[in-house]
Amino acid sequence: MNHAIAIDCMGGDHGPSVTVAAASGFLADHSEANAMLVGKESELTTYVEKLDPAIRQRLHIQHASEVVGMGESPPSALKNKKDSSMRVAINLVKRGEAAGCVSAGNTGALMATARFVLKMLPGIDRPAICAVMPTMRGQVYMLDLGANVDCSAEHLVQFGIMGSVLASALEHRQAPSVGLLNIGEEAIKGNSVVKDAAEGLQNSGVNFLGNVEGDGIFKGHADIVVCDGFVGNVSLKTTEGLAQMINSFLREEFKRGLIARTAALLAMPVLRRFKRRVDHRSFNGAVLLGLRGVVIKSHGSADVYAFQQAITRAYETVRNGVLTRISERLHELHMDEKSSTGEDYGEGESEEAVFVERNA
Amino acid sequence: MNHAIAIDCMGGDHGPSVTVAAASGFLADHSEANAMLVGKESELTTYVEKLDPAIRQRLHIQHASEVVGMGESPPSALKNKKDSSMRVAINLVKRGEAAGCVSAGNTGALMATARFVLKMLPGIDRPAICAVMPTMRGQVYMLDLGANVDCSAEHLVQFGIMGSVLASALEHRQAPSVGLLNIGEEAIKGNSVVKDAAEGLQNSGVNFLGNVEGDGIFKGHADIVVCDGFVGNVSLKTTEGLAQMINSFLREEFKRGLIARTAALLAMPVLRRFKRRVDHRSFNGAVLLGLRGVVIKSHGSADVYAFQQAITRAYETVRNGVLTRISERLHELHMDEKSSTGEDYGEGESEEAVFVERNA
Repeated sequence: MNHAIAIDCMGGDHGPSVTVAAASGFLADHSEANAMLVGKESELTTYVEKLDPAIRQRLHIQHASEVVGMGESPPSALKNKKDSSMRVAINLVKRGEAAGCVSAGNTGALMATARFVLKMLPGIDRPAICAVMPTMRGQVYMLDLGANVDCSAEHLVQFGIMGSVLASALEHRQAPSVGLLNIGEEAIKGNSVVKDAAEGLQNSGVNFLGNVEGDGIFKGHADIVVCDGFVGNVSLKTTEGLAQMINSFLREEFKRGLIARTAALLAMPVLRRFKRRVDHRSFNGAVLLGLRGVVIKSHGSADVYAFQQAITRAYETVRNGVLTRISERLHELHMDEKSSTGEDYGEGESEEAVFVERNA
Repeated sequence: MNHAIAIDCMGGDHGPSVTVAAASGFLADHSEANAMLVGKESELTTYVEKLDPAIRQRLHIQHASEVVGMGESPPSALKNKKDSSMRVAINLVKRGEAAGCVSAGNTGALMATARFVLKMLPGIDRPAICAVMPTMRGQVYMLDLGANVDCSAEHLVQFGIMGSVLASALEHRQAPSVGLLNIGEEAIKGNSVVKDAAEGLQNSGVNFLGNVEGDGIFKGHADIVVCDGFVGNVSLKTTEGLAQMINSFLREEFKRGLIARTAALLAMPVLRRFKRRVDHRSFNGAVLLGLRGVVIKSHGSADVYAFQQAITRAYETVRNGVLTRISERLHELHMDEKSSTGEDYGEGESEEAVFVERNA
């Protein structure tokens, strides 16, 4: 079975210096895996030539002449960058030449391109961004983290089903618990969308726990937490800000005076162990769920270690047959019988333009 | 000028053992202040008798025979607990016998009772919960944190104006900056409510910075952050959960093995200083903005130190004339000329019932 992962080597803040090194690390750790490096051939070749021959023979370079800018709008990327490393990597998935792809490029462009090229799974209206985070009890899968600013109750139910299948496949667990992010645990709390979503999740076959409050995310109250993309994005970024603040306060205090500096020296290994446990780099690699293909979004600022985690996430998602499992689950629930959501754009040059217009 | 603060001594998880001790601490720190302790007279008397006479003479006990339960619904509290310590404390504000009040009782009941008894300020449709939090640059005023699950753009603009006046009054700053919580800094981001709110804030006379992302809250990107109550509540509670997780991981690591334990001993004063900087107890006391009276909500689980901070917040809010300043600002903006928002319930026994029905 072809488990090759296509890697957009030009996306992100650092480009090939990070992405090629991460690909090499990934291949070293997974002796049966292959990778396709997508980007400017001449540039990639200089990096690849320095690698171990045993690694090199499981690498294939796929040329792409353009790069999507980190601040470039999704419509511009779609219409003007048809030979971008991002688009070519997704095309490889579409054609079945790669089993999944990874990009640290800009989220909006990646989402739009993936949705345009791969289309949605039957029964799913909207893609969702699903990330994994550490909790006091293990880890939590949270979605949506920013793909959708407005969600209906039905969308939230779809997210719950997809998140449940993903967590079940990657964690090898039978019925992971699903919580709905809300402002209280009682069923009467929240707005009408959330209340309807709770009812829908109750009847969706997932192991639905009910409402989870914000603090329940990190306390590990549920294996999967479902929310709309606005709330999810704000909540995720808020925690990033808090983590940075705590980190900077800790540093400052350990630099204040001679005793603190001495304590810091002695406490160094302890603090290092602590940091490893909450290191967001270990959790890098969000899954874009709901597409007819495996697409993983890495943080733009990922370093080699973090980007390698994202590649590994793509590989695990592929290896555990997540896509097939989601399709089967939607079929069991007869959700795939819904009418098409209009993902057909006809033929011709202007398909991208039609897509952009419809999704404006 | 009467700056007496009415204290709901029965609300919260602990009751008089915490609230009376906190009142005593507050009076000791503010020699010109007075406090009215509201609750079961016999119970309060036993606590007050043990206090220093100099403190005791600035304390007045106001009997209230009932207590609103922490899990009691707002309609039940309104209709069935007309002599609760919470309601009596708010009544004292209404009658001008107290300049403001504080309660650690349940948020929904406090909000509904305050709104029913005191009514809204002319020009304000909805009350908002505004809390203060530490940031990398100082502190931030954030609202709404849970009073409203659905907000219109106009509500968010009202929150921005009120938050700005509050921060300006309490921090003695001319034009504190206001940010709108969103999923990107660009003006095109977010849903239609947020986009319209940005336009409204631009024309509201506040020092509007534009959008702030989740991580900007703790990075101190704005002095005031405005959001709807659903997002604000989730985001606040998420950070509480993360802070607890980080704290528990730090503890665990400092207990692992002899070296870590030794390091912990030496690092103790450093860690204590660090904890003080992020101690949420120091920031206890959220202001319920938009009412015709000063009402402060304390965390239900507040200890003596935390509850004293909430009383102090009430006192500072009163002393700095926040209510008058907000009214003046609304008048300058001609916002108080809007038609009444239906806060008149007619006369008779069933006013509470009418209020509950209208706000269901």
